[in-house]
Amino acid sequence: MIGHHTIWDIYNCTSIKIKFVEPIKEILNQIVTEIHLTKVSESYKQFEPFGATGFILLEESHISIHTWPEHNFVAIDVFSCRAFDIDKINSLLNSYFETDEIKTKVIKRGLINQLK
Amino acid sequence: MIGHHTIWDIYNCTSIKIKFVEPIKEILNQIVTEIHLTKVSESYKQFEPFGATGFILLEESHISIHTWPEHNFVAIDVFSCRAFDIDKINSLLNSYFETDEIKTKVIKRGLINQLK
Repeated sequence: MIGHHTIWDIYNCTSIKIKFVEPIKEILNQIVTEIHLTKVSESYKQFEPFGATGFILLEESHISIHTWPEHNFVAIDVFSCRAFDIDKINSLLNSYFETDEIKTKVIKRGLINQLK
Repeated sequence: MIGHHTIWDIYNCTSIKIKFVEPIKEILNQIVTEIHLTKVSESYKQFEPFGATGFILLEESHISIHTWPEHNFVAIDVFSCRAFDIDKINSLLNSYFETDEIKTKVIKRGLINQLK
């Protein structure tokens, strides 16, 4: 497998954490630190009246976040060329967004010399 | 469903198209134009001696690309808050990377009021 891609669909999020850019910037950077990734650049967008989107380009690939405060919903992706600790990120997200309604899916990207 | 997320794992790519930033920037921007998305910002990284990664932050969410020229492999994601024409992107990628070995997967993000 070439790429390690995990997605998190997070429901029942504390709304104040997902309305604005600042807290989503904070959680993305916490993930980078927690699983020892290397940041290349980052970009964010604030929507009006609320809602935010963000992206960190990594040496290892990327992290993205998109929030829908009107649904208390957040979607996060971590894509890396090397394996990372998914449980660490689960704990971080669980605690940060104050919800345990998190659906995680692991996606194997690039099956070379294996059954595709 | 809140987010429309489709991933493409593209094998046997023409190596010259995936070694450097310029052609990957071109294909990401072609996708944006083709399915009428709205670009907020974009960021790219050239790896040495080859390999590239890129990201376009959209009003609608994001597009990402990561290339592994040593495996003739490319991973592309399109994530949008509104539905888009997957077949159009399939044709574009098929023609641009000169391969028909493309594995496409549709991922439904955020199942509100549905069985999660």
